[in-house]
Amino acid sequence: MEDLQSLFSPRSVALVGIPRSFKIGTLFLMGLQDQGFPGPIYPVNPHAAEIEGLRSYPSIADVPDPLDMVIVMVPRNQVMAVLEDCAKKRVKSVILYTSGYGESGEKGGLEEQERIRETARRGGFRILGPNCMGIHSSSSGLAFFPQMPRVSGSVGLISQSGSLCNLLMKAFEPRKVFFRHAVSYGNACDVDLPELLMWMGKQPDIRLICAYTEGVRDGRSLARAMDTIAGRKPLIMWKVGRTGAGQRAAASHTGSLSGDETLWRALFQQYGILDVSDLEEMMDLVMAMHHLPWEGKGRIVLVSGPGGPVVSAADAAERWGLTMAALEDRTRQRLKGILPSTGTSCRNPVDVGLSASFELNLYLDSLQILTEDRNVDAIVVLGGGISDETNRVYTEGLVRIREGTEKALLAVAYPGFVQPEAWLDPLCGAGIPVYPTPERALRAYARMRQFIRFHDQRAGSSWG
Amino acid sequence: MEDLQSLFSPRSVALVGIPRSFKIGTLFLMGLQDQGFPGPIYPVNPHAAEIEGLRSYPSIADVPDPLDMVIVMVPRNQVMAVLEDCAKKRVKSVILYTSGYGESGEKGGLEEQERIRETARRGGFRILGPNCMGIHSSSSGLAFFPQMPRVSGSVGLISQSGSLCNLLMKAFEPRKVFFRHAVSYGNACDVDLPELLMWMGKQPDIRLICAYTEGVRDGRSLARAMDTIAGRKPLIMWKVGRTGAGQRAAASHTGSLSGDETLWRALFQQYGILDVSDLEEMMDLVMAMHHLPWEGKGRIVLVSGPGGPVVSAADAAERWGLTMAALEDRTRQRLKGILPSTGTSCRNPVDVGLSASFELNLYLDSLQILTEDRNVDAIVVLGGGISDETNRVYTEGLVRIREGTEKALLAVAYPGFVQPEAWLDPLCGAGIPVYPTPERALRAYARMRQFIRFHDQRAGSSWG
Repeated sequence: MEDLQSLFSPRSVALVGIPRSFKIGTLFLMGLQDQGFPGPIYPVNPHAAEIEGLRSYPSIADVPDPLDMVIVMVPRNQVMAVLEDCAKKRVKSVILYTSGYGESGEKGGLEEQERIRETARRGGFRILGPNCMGIHSSSSGLAFFPQMPRVSGSVGLISQSGSLCNLLMKAFEPRKVFFRHAVSYGNACDVDLPELLMWMGKQPDIRLICAYTEGVRDGRSLARAMDTIAGRKPLIMWKVGRTGAGQRAAASHTGSLSGDETLWRALFQQYGILDVSDLEEMMDLVMAMHHLPWEGKGRIVLVSGPGGPVVSAADAAERWGLTMAALEDRTRQRLKGILPSTGTSCRNPVDVGLSASFELNLYLDSLQILTEDRNVDAIVVLGGGISDETNRVYTEGLVRIREGTEKALLAVAYPGFVQPEAWLDPLCGAGIPVYPTPERALRAYARMRQFIRFHDQRAGSSWG
Repeated sequence: MEDLQSLFSPRSVALVGIPRSFKIGTLFLMGLQDQGFPGPIYPVNPHAAEIEGLRSYPSIADVPDPLDMVIVMVPRNQVMAVLEDCAKKRVKSVILYTSGYGESGEKGGLEEQERIRETARRGGFRILGPNCMGIHSSSSGLAFFPQMPRVSGSVGLISQSGSLCNLLMKAFEPRKVFFRHAVSYGNACDVDLPELLMWMGKQPDIRLICAYTEGVRDGRSLARAMDTIAGRKPLIMWKVGRTGAGQRAAASHTGSLSGDETLWRALFQQYGILDVSDLEEMMDLVMAMHHLPWEGKGRIVLVSGPGGPVVSAADAAERWGLTMAALEDRTRQRLKGILPSTGTSCRNPVDVGLSASFELNLYLDSLQILTEDRNVDAIVVLGGGISDETNRVYTEGLVRIREGTEKALLAVAYPGFVQPEAWLDPLCGAGIPVYPTPERALRAYARMRQFIRFHDQRAGSSWG
């Protein structure tokens, strides 16, 4: 555990093999500078005296101070020598960016990974990678790249794929989901998924863990890690390599052995892991679990101006095992009092009619009434105005309603109706996740409810 | 059949009950004017001499010329009198916008719909509605609203929900899918889905039909219509009211009886109907069938810079029954010749490496090589640059490649990587559909292939 602590919050960092002039490798240094890494940074390059304004050293041995972390991006044939230097320097952890090992498909690749692990073990340090991008953590001042989010959140992200790790952070940023620590762990010659899960499971500042993985070496450790997390915080896992084609793709991506699909499914089921299979499903579910209150019984009401989309949504609600709220008589009477008499419906789904796009208060007043219904736990609203100005009235109204209620409010920005981009910031920022369709909103909410039920039934559950 | 012809291309239109001053009803008139309806338009309102610059008449009887179509938006208690006037005037078709009938849940609603139908039958005209928005057809100069697409395409759209009809057209516009005729048919007291399907099935200028429906009165007619279409052109159908919750929602939306889910499924299977269950699935599939070539054997290759997303995509390809193309040796050698030696893969999925975001030719040259591989029928590419300028190089390159090949090219605009909005216009316009994830691109392509196989196996198939 302490080993990983030095990986996630090192006091000093050296970058070995950083290019003299601007290339991709330079981005790692710029990332640290961009996040304002609080400790000293030592570029190491035998051919440069200074890189990006920092004094450069010919080798690790020449760095005058103790080193916690070394980021290695030298070509493959120089890696072992650098690792020997790391051992001599008594560094605590190494991020090995260099690729071309187990994923290359060549025979020597896996054996060399094995030698790398042995070298680290003998040298008393841990290795993340090879073929990874390392750690992003605003609280520690670490990043792969410049211009990554600078906000530290409460979600932990573990991704075997480095580029996916980066893309997830970028995709989540406008949705107001921020990460406490994000780690790209690549071929996992030493530090692997189970240990990362276990570590994140024990961090009190991480409430929710997302993971993308292509396979794992040690199934028993994985089960132990899942068992530890299961009672504490939700784990949303995107496991790939679940078919023959996916397994072959994983092998040439990180050299992973994807393992038996049946075993993975059994693990997910036993430990209540939220199993997702694409980026949209992951984003949708994380938004729900991050932004929505977990209280209530999961009884939903659908609200819309356009009628068609919520008929389909009612189907989706039932398919996903959600309960359509039976509105109180008083609620129906109050809705009747404000909605036009034709082209509307005061039952669930509530149809506020077409004129609501002009008179936004038909939406907002209906929503306010529904938050006061004791049979309602969550509201999915598909609405919007016909102009930027009416949309502003609408989104500001949603935020006000959300501030005044303990209930879950999910907004739908429907294609052809409104442009969702302008809504993400104000709504997600106020705890109202935004979805393109009611079906996706309901799927996310239903999975969240399933998770809550699973853990309520599990003895000794306590939310981390 | 001739009856419906007058519905889709009337030579003259009267609007009865159009408001004197601007209200929602005014939009119907503005829609006709906006599309440049080629025949005379007669507003009918006893309290106005002129509406939106047109001479207004006190009643239908006062209109001096013969009338093909009457759009009726008077309150419910005036509808029967207007319909009697329509009979006397010998109009050919009526669009009944007024709502509050079968969908109201009140006992008299369905009976009154029955009387409306009887009146139309006796009067020798057809009725679309009630509770509908009517017809949009740029070729005929019809529209529900102003600012609707003015381009006439080759897709037919039939939607029981008027607002969904409108939203679908808006959502498809930037995706370069345009409709020949779109019809919102509401409660279907007279003209119902089977007849609309049959009519669109026989129009030579419609290549593909999309339908959204909540239920149908006459199952036999529906089966006959599907049988007629099955050999001619694809039908993509979003049938809702498939669960108890959905059926109750449909009843209060259009008063529809949704029917037995088992029967609907049997129909879809028997006639090769493409059954979708939300807007995204419909959009994805229509884009594929509209933009992509139908030739080939469906062998796909995945191309990406970010590695993780395409491992998941390989899983999706296999789950959807697609074949991952086995690349020719020559192709692999050519790819090896241009791609960096590490962090890339020359097998399928092809990984062009991270530097491709800076050097866009790594994407474009790889794609060109893959179009020349005889084992490849379709390419799904997840790529992009790091700036507007590099993205322009990329999208222009994709268009060039598409122009030089008969193969299917599907582009992925991945969340966190690129903003899809700027890509829709140039790429969809060039026959390259754009998807947010490779999983959705593959699902659409796989469904398209299933459809082609189904119809190839059906005797006497001929593409309409």
